[in-house]
Amino acid sequence: MAALARSVLVTGSNRGIGLELVRQLAASPWPPQHIFATCRHPEGPRGKVSVGAGSSPLCFFALADIVNLPSIRGAVRAVGSHLKDQGLNLLINNAGISSHATLRSLDSQEMLSVFATNVVGPLQVAKEFLPLLEKAAKDAGKEGLSCSRAAVINVSTKLGSIGLCLGVLEAPMYPYRASKAAQNMVTRCMAAELQDKGILCTAIHPGWVKTNMGTQKAPLTVERSVRGILAVLASLSQDTSGAFLDWEGNSLPW
Amino acid sequence: MAALARSVLVTGSNRGIGLELVRQLAASPWPPQHIFATCRHPEGPRGKVSVGAGSSPLCFFALADIVNLPSIRGAVRAVGSHLKDQGLNLLINNAGISSHATLRSLDSQEMLSVFATNVVGPLQVAKEFLPLLEKAAKDAGKEGLSCSRAAVINVSTKLGSIGLCLGVLEAPMYPYRASKAAQNMVTRCMAAELQDKGILCTAIHPGWVKTNMGTQKAPLTVERSVRGILAVLASLSQDTSGAFLDWEGNSLPW
Ligand SMILES: NC(=O)c1ccc[n+]([C@@H]2O[C@H](COP(=O)([O-])OP(=O)(O)OC[C@H]3O[C@@H](n4cnc5c(N)ncnc54)[C@H](OP(=O)(O)O)[C@@H]3O)[C@@H](O)[C@H]2O)c1
Ligand SMILES: NC(=O)c1ccc[n+]([C@@H]2O[C@H](COP(=O)([O-])OP(=O)(O)OC[C@H]3O[C@@H](n4cnc5c(N)ncnc54)[C@H](OP(=O)(O)O)[C@@H]3O)[C@@H](O)[C@H]2O)c1
Repeated sequence: MAALARSVLVTGSNRGIGLELVRQLAASPWPPQHIFATCRHPEGPRGKVSVGAGSSPLCFFALADIVNLPSIRGAVRAVGSHLKDQGLNLLINNAGISSHATLRSLDSQEMLSVFATNVVGPLQVAKEFLPLLEKAAKDAGKEGLSCSRAAVINVSTKLGSIGLCLGVLEAPMYPYRASKAAQNMVTRCMAAELQDKGILCTAIHPGWVKTNMGTQKAPLTVERSVRGILAVLASLSQDTSGAFLDWEGNSLPW
Repeated sequence: MAALARSVLVTGSNRGIGLELVRQLAASPWPPQHIFATCRHPEGPRGKVSVGAGSSPLCFFALADIVNLPSIRGAVRAVGSHLKDQGLNLLINNAGISSHATLRSLDSQEMLSVFATNVVGPLQVAKEFLPLLEKAAKDAGKEGLSCSRAAVINVSTKLGSIGLCLGVLEAPMYPYRASKAAQNMVTRCMAAELQDKGILCTAIHPGWVKTNMGTQKAPLTVERSVRGILAVLASLSQDTSGAFLDWEGNSLPW
């Protein structure tokens, strides 16, 4: 069995799903050679959790505030110099924020800040890491699309499915839903644009997960969700680039 | 034959599709009693076009810059005092901007400004006009959903269909596509939330139309597009609230 990918970068990896992704990748029997755990506050109390948990020699920490372009570029430089002449195989855009605004309570600044983090952020991260992803795709010595060659995974949500439009009355969350629908569009566009460069792009819904964002009411532990996500990532191919899948591999409507 | 609605408000009505909507509504054999043509620069050279074209006694002009909350609120007050004790039946969120940014050229400030105009703007306009729409729905003396009772129409675009994801290689337009997918999500959420209040919400793709935005390469004249849109609006009901339709009434995938 081979590693999911030679090198993997995860945004927002100091807690929640991002932290567990780094943990399970590092603990895997076939771990990646390089795991880049990034977060925006590596020195703060939340950053320490990450350092503690991912204390594997494979883990390399880098600062990346995804709404701050110089910070993203700093991470690209740090990752690039760590990888030396290799590319980056797998970028997991996991960092995100929620918003409970309803139609009546919503505020334009809050809504724009959700868009900045959930749509513009992942897009800028992908854009800035593109040269490293392209390098990985080129150097992989294989055809077709896969996470082991080169891929961008955008962590999305079922609440971002316009077709399903689940539970609006109970959880309006307009800014969050709208931002994730926009992020899904970005995933589809990138899948179309980057396919010829050998880069796969897929949107993944992690399930409703017990994290800060998901709350303790969520039915799914972060361990189970991430185990599912990693299995789905390993199965991705040309056929599922540009798809919207859940943590069990089921296809979701846009 | 009855009027499409007793009162109609159109945003961005100084040119393009918005101007033609006002024109055809005013020229209809069964015109609305009140047509509110709004735009952000009523005194500028573009504003004059609007005054000239909509010089019907039915037309009332109001300032509404949809990214400026005090300006929207000013329009609500002006419209409210014009309508006296009546509500507003039909709000057409037409104003929008495009963006030709590609993955490589995109800039976060530009992207956020597209979101501000195309997603937050229409949502704030709908939110601020909600009391007048609710009043219209209540006073209509009829059940069911229709543009003649109370409705919010969001002018969307086929390029905002994540499922179709048309022509990304020829016209990447990431910010525009993402913003319209987000706007579609907002339309769906509002349709779900406002249905019990008797307010219909539908997303309409006007076709590819010869306007400033559509360019002269577009196959469709603004007259034809708007004739189609108005016929589709007249046909909307409970069944098509929350739908995504084109100017000929065809359903589009999210
Ligand atoms: N939990 C669920 O039920 C659920 C369901 C569907 C989708 N998701 C998605 O899964 C992803 C992870 O969510 P989670 O449940 O793990 O949430 P979480 O526990 O709230 O963690 C969010 C992570 O994103 C990071 N982040 C936020 N803004 C950032 C920025 N500007 N730069 C860098 N990092 C930033 C946070 O860092 P700080 O510690 O610095 O704030 C944190 O590491 C999100 O994209 C979310 O939308 C979650
Ligand atoms: N033309 C097409 O092929 C096509 C296709 C699909 C969808 N659409 C959609 O149709 C709608 C109308 O487009 P169009 O083709 O008529 O474009 P247009 O000729 O470029 O007109 C856009 C209108 O929106 C107004 N606007 C922009 N920002 C505004 C703001 N902050 N506040 C108030 N008004 C604002 C403009 O006002 P100013 O004059 O002040 O700039 C103008 O009146 C848009 O939502 C567009 O996305 C068009």
